Amino acid sequence: MEITVAELAKVLNLEYKGDGSTLIRHACGLESDRPFGISYIENERFYKKAMESSVEVLVCRETVELPEKTLIFADFPDLMIVEITHLLHPAKAFQKSTHSSSQIESDSFLGKDLFIGANVVIGHRTKIGSGTVIMAGTVIGDDCELGENCMIHPNVTVRDDSKIGDRVVINSGTVIGSEGFGFVSHDGLHHKIPQVGYVQIEDDVELGACNTIDRGRFGLTRIRRGSKTDNLVHIGHNVEIGEDSLIVGMVGFAGSTKTGHHLTMGGQSMLAGHLTIGDHVTVSAKSLLAKNVGNGERYSGIPARLHKEWLNAQGYLYRLQRIFEFFKQLKK
Amino acid sequence: MEITVAELAKVLNLEYKGDGSTLIRHACGLESDRPFGISYIENERFYKKAMESSVEVLVCRETVELPEKTLIFADFPDLMIVEITHLLHPAKAFQKSTHSSSQIESDSFLGKDLFIGANVVIGHRTKIGSGTVIMAGTVIGDDCELGENCMIHPNVTVRDDSKIGDRVVINSGTVIGSEGFGFVSHDGLHHKIPQVGYVQIEDDVELGACNTIDRGRFGLTRIRRGSKTDNLVHIGHNVEIGEDSLIVGMVGFAGSTKTGHHLTMGGQSMLAGHLTIGDHVTVSAKSLLAKNVGNGERYSGIPARLHKEWLNAQGYLYRLQRIFEFFKQLKK
Amino acid sequence: MEITVAELAKVLNLEYKGDGSTLIRHACGLESDRPFGISYIENERFYKKAMESSVEVLVCRETVELPEKTLIFADFPDLMIVEITHLLHPAKAFQKSTHSSSQIESDSFLGKDLFIGANVVIGHRTKIGSGTVIMAGTVIGDDCELGENCMIHPNVTVRDDSKIGDRVVINSGTVIGSEGFGFVSHDGLHHKIPQVGYVQIEDDVELGACNTIDRGRFGLTRIRRGSKTDNLVHIGHNVEIGEDSLIVGMVGFAGSTKTGHHLTMGGQSMLAGHLTIGDHVTVSAKSLLAKNVGNGERYSGIPARLHKEWLNAQGYLYRLQRIFEFFKQLKK
Repeated sequence: MEITVAELAKVLNLEYKGDGSTLIRHACGLESDRPFGISYIENERFYKKAMESSVEVLVCRETVELPEKTLIFADFPDLMIVEITHLLHPAKAFQKSTHSSSQIESDSFLGKDLFIGANVVIGHRTKIGSGTVIMAGTVIGDDCELGENCMIHPNVTVRDDSKIGDRVVINSGTVIGSEGFGFVSHDGLHHKIPQVGYVQIEDDVELGACNTIDRGRFGLTRIRRGSKTDNLVHIGHNVEIGEDSLIVGMVGFAGSTKTGHHLTMGGQSMLAGHLTIGDHVTVSAKSLLAKNVGNGERYSGIPARLHKEWLNAQGYLYRLQRIFEFFKQLKK
Repeated sequence: MEITVAELAKVLNLEYKGDGSTLIRHACGLESDRPFGISYIENERFYKKAMESSVEVLVCRETVELPEKTLIFADFPDLMIVEITHLLHPAKAFQKSTHSSSQIESDSFLGKDLFIGANVVIGHRTKIGSGTVIMAGTVIGDDCELGENCMIHPNVTVRDDSKIGDRVVINSGTVIGSEGFGFVSHDGLHHKIPQVGYVQIEDDVELGACNTIDRGRFGLTRIRRGSKTDNLVHIGHNVEIGEDSLIVGMVGFAGSTKTGHHLTMGGQSMLAGHLTIGDHVTVSAKSLLAKNVGNGERYSGIPARLHKEWLNAQGYLYRLQRIFEFFKQLKK
Repeated sequence: MEITVAELAKVLNLEYKGDGSTLIRHACGLESDRPFGISYIENERFYKKAMESSVEVLVCRETVELPEKTLIFADFPDLMIVEITHLLHPAKAFQKSTHSSSQIESDSFLGKDLFIGANVVIGHRTKIGSGTVIMAGTVIGDDCELGENCMIHPNVTVRDDSKIGDRVVINSGTVIGSEGFGFVSHDGLHHKIPQVGYVQIEDDVELGACNTIDRGRFGLTRIRRGSKTDNLVHIGHNVEIGEDSLIVGMVGFAGSTKTGHHLTMGGQSMLAGHLTIGDHVTVSAKSLLAKNVGNGERYSGIPARLHKEWLNAQGYLYRLQRIFEFFKQLKK
């Protein structure tokens, strides 16, 4: 696709400044050296990078002055570049089709306008909402419910009884509804506790690649509306994650922990089991939060404390040498 | 399924106290608000939670007094609730069948009463024991041996030469027998060391979802009888894990480490390579044990020390501010 | 395969000392107790282990004295044992074949001498170079390019637009080209940023099992020539990893970080996002490097500092008790 700055501004109902005839073919980062790109700057911190960039067209706030660039003005440049990216790089269209190699039980309930790829398996009594895309190699068990307009990437596994809302995205390799890690130990032997619950993924959740989300022991494991996970995230049985949470790569949730909304988990961090966590809580990368906490704080460390306390202690840790030297002198 | 307390107690040969006509339909946690549930309390710590719970029927020891509840008495309530869960929620029956879409080499050796799901692939000369269930999309290579009554979930990968015992459970996404990470580096280039060994998984082992268990470089990687792994666990080449170990989520084992029995690894913990670890060792969540240790201790930290030493040092770490303030005064 | 020491030495054009008629059937570690093995020692550190070993034939440098063993001399015993392992345990031959159950789009471009396993899916316009092996259950999307002599294990997922070089190895469960974790948050809601880039894996890269490598947001995510990853590694969008790097198990790379060549990442370590990392950098196991660094140093800790600084601080941490006791005395 190719469009001029003037045409693009018109389509988006935005003002621009500079050469309206400049051609745009793709959205890009400031570091791009491919011609015909459009990028954006969110705020003043990126001025210098923008001036040094070879990208000629930028989306920015109206207050920005960059005389050598052609500028398109938007109140929220980061949201606008998302819209422009969609426009310039329209998502692949999945046309209604069911691959001849798919294996679909005849007692399943299929909505309209589905795309079902090669070797997809769909179990007994499972319902798939209209407009959903299920790519090659994905296996969906019995008695599941998938909502409308979901995007299930290749080689996903959805085990029996899982409930999945509308517009849910699941990347490849992810497993929904695996057996939870529950054993009763007697006389040194571990007896499996039957995991008879299920998983509920609410609307607008997006899951990265190779996530593992265990079914409830009893009851359910739940990821609430709008939450997003990165890759290789592990969610234990009976966990409940609040709305609009952001779970970065390689995070672990031990069993039965319930969190509020807008949880942010940094890379490779972890929540211990059986916790109650408030809203708007942040756990720093690599940290292990192991106690109940209320709303709105950031926690760091192993085990995690308030971020400021942790930062303070780390600072002292690296000044210990001085203390020890002073201590030697005192002893003398 | 529906049963009265009196009937259930009779089936299990147990005593009860309270209204024997109370109906039970499902096993549940104390927090459940669905009617007709049965739960349990293991000990006195759960008295308060039990009294506040809306669950009417509880399994507990005979010494427990909860006048408002109907009680079923058992010596080991946690084991008994497992039995009751099996009774109320019988596991899905997998009837003997081989899906028409499965791809099974004609020189494989198949036992009796197998369930082989859609798109399952079974390689040359591979033996599958009787009663084993292999779900959709699973790929089993050449020259493998699977025992009897195994439960292999969908989209599992078992590479050539793997040996798997009886009653083994493997959750989805797990890979058995991948190539170990072994390279010889010369002049800045890394040359692959052929990984010509195999994996042996002994009887009654259960593996979570998205585990990766590398084949031996030479010889074998072994998980001994009765051990259980949670999700996203990594086991390097030539590791040997002792009997009845519990490996929680996201744990890593570097190559060639051998452990005793009843190892417990906390979430996101790690064992370094080439170690010898005793029996009944515990490694705390997030910790890295990097030295040989004997029997029966708990280790914490990065690198891990005896848990008490680590706890002690952490305590001092968060009291350093005081020391520094005192130090300032002294200097004056 | 069976060969005498004399024959093997002749084939490899090496000298030997001891009984040339000794039979060899397999390469092994020094701890092996199977007869007819050949092992090696790289240097003097393994003398004692070699003497105690029941393995009769060893590859070693010419300077080694082990009178009870039969020795084959090589300048680089570790490289030579690789060659010998290949000789004694020839890799499985994959004969040119395309399984009847594979689903290959008719507008794909297939090279010569391919092995394509059961249920493999290959998308539109995808090119596969000659001699490449694609094992059962692997799904390759549209518009991909795979080079020559690649080895793609079962149940791998390669998403649309991925570019993969020659002689690349990808172990099972790995996902190439998943969507990056990119969201714009406004008024508490997270809006997906379209991820319109791709992944480029250069020649001679080898990827472990269950890796997740996200496509670029714009532009590409790149793993350069000769780099190797272990299992369960996560590589975020727009990361670039330099040549000949070694990425051990369970390592995470946050988005947009660029590294030099010969990076070494220890187990469960992590690089934060948007960093620039020099050549020959090492990050210790469990550490989080969160700042730009130049060439050639080792970093440890959370966040990571120069390894020596970290080691120093850890040392003091475990001597704090003494300081606190002295502090108490002083106060008195």
